[in-house]
Amino acid sequence: MASPKQTLRAVDDNARRLAKTLLRTARYAGLGHLDVDDGSPVVSRVNVATCMDGRIGFLISELSPHFDALVADPRCSVLLGEPGKGDPIAHPRLTIIGRAHRIVESVEQQRFASRFLRKHPKSSLYAEFADFAYWRLTPQRALLNGGFGKAYELTQRDIQTNVDGLDDLEGMEVGAITHMNEDHRDAIDLYSARLGLKPMSGWELISLDPEGFDLAQRDETARLWFDCPIKSADELRPVLISIAREARLGNN
Amino acid sequence: MASPKQTLRAVDDNARRLAKTLLRTARYAGLGHLDVDDGSPVVSRVNVATCMDGRIGFLISELSPHFDALVADPRCSVLLGEPGKGDPIAHPRLTIIGRAHRIVESVEQQRFASRFLRKHPKSSLYAEFADFAYWRLTPQRALLNGGFGKAYELTQRDIQTNVDGLDDLEGMEVGAITHMNEDHRDAIDLYSARLGLKPMSGWELISLDPEGFDLAQRDETARLWFDCPIKSADELRPVLISIAREARLGNN
Repeated sequence: MASPKQTLRAVDDNARRLAKTLLRTARYAGLGHLDVDDGSPVVSRVNVATCMDGRIGFLISELSPHFDALVADPRCSVLLGEPGKGDPIAHPRLTIIGRAHRIVESVEQQRFASRFLRKHPKSSLYAEFADFAYWRLTPQRALLNGGFGKAYELTQRDIQTNVDGLDDLEGMEVGAITHMNEDHRDAIDLYSARLGLKPMSGWELISLDPEGFDLAQRDETARLWFDCPIKSADELRPVLISIAREARLGNN
Repeated sequence: MASPKQTLRAVDDNARRLAKTLLRTARYAGLGHLDVDDGSPVVSRVNVATCMDGRIGFLISELSPHFDALVADPRCSVLLGEPGKGDPIAHPRLTIIGRAHRIVESVEQQRFASRFLRKHPKSSLYAEFADFAYWRLTPQRALLNGGFGKAYELTQRDIQTNVDGLDDLEGMEVGAITHMNEDHRDAIDLYSARLGLKPMSGWELISLDPEGFDLAQRDETARLWFDCPIKSADELRPVLISIAREARLGNN
């Protein structure tokens, strides 16, 4: 029997959006690394979060084999996106291939740790242990499989988010998130409604970036995309207000 | 802050049982392979099933990058076991490391295809396409992580099932399964009850081996272990009857 030839599809905005949604909402990944002794490709599981620029980061212990493996050879990949009902390989997944390095610079570490721990509050039980460290994967390319026969090869540019000149947004992220979660739960409920999330309330804002923000509730995550990427931290507040206003109008 | 030192635990029967349960019940895996061009460790997703001896097999298309990668270098690994609620890395998972080869021998292929397609009935939509082929991973070793701080390194012997002298069991598997599913749904309901499965009926027997058998319903799988491994095909029927009888007594 002949099969329809599976060729790579041309990368378009839908593919980029799907890939970025997978990477922004992923809670864990299969981490591919090279065995220290024999170079075999080994897959382990890590909890993940993103940096504001879309790079995947993770928290691992130096007592684990993947830690030594990445110290010896930084080449690695992460498989993101979990199957739902039905045929597992009918569900979209993304493999990001690149090199991982420990995050050593203290501001970067602080910023990533804060995003990571909002996505993984239970990791705070061990994140401070001396043997744990945050690592970050700088992508070289990515393979998106959007389901049977929908394969794409993406570049670093396709899956990363431009944060040039947005250091002020990174600096204010924690404050903005805390403010929204503490003082504007009504707005967050409106974002949840716009995304059609269930339950309709109880979600928390956990991270934001120039292209949108991420919500979480227990083990669930969701992503809301801005219509256009914001260009400065000053644009954040009006955008958040305008999305809530549109959602309120949509509800009435 | 000091961390409790994560050392490998001594492998015991509980660890072996957990590892084998993960590999027998897994529906899909993260497949680690070496990129054909640059040798990077890449992770993709594949649907999996087991051979009767416990080796993991999968169905892949020669149009996919992992197919070419495994042709070029058979070294690979599979990550099995999916997280449930709470911290993803608190849930058990198993990495099996070894070499994968296409299953070419026709009886072996038929036997594995039959097990695979009972676990993945939707794969029958494409399993016969000319570009698809069944592959099998011969393990060299495995890493079991039973949750935080519970790490084990297992040998091939720890995770495989001895089928020496049991070719007759392999030969009768399809017939026995069909007979059970068609004529003894009452017994299967008793097995489901013994395992505490929900819903309590509607499960099907999908594979059996000397150490137990596997049930499936939609996207769920479950494993029932025999008290002792059976030594010949003749022992199968009395064992199946005795488990059903015990379960019936347990219910009354």
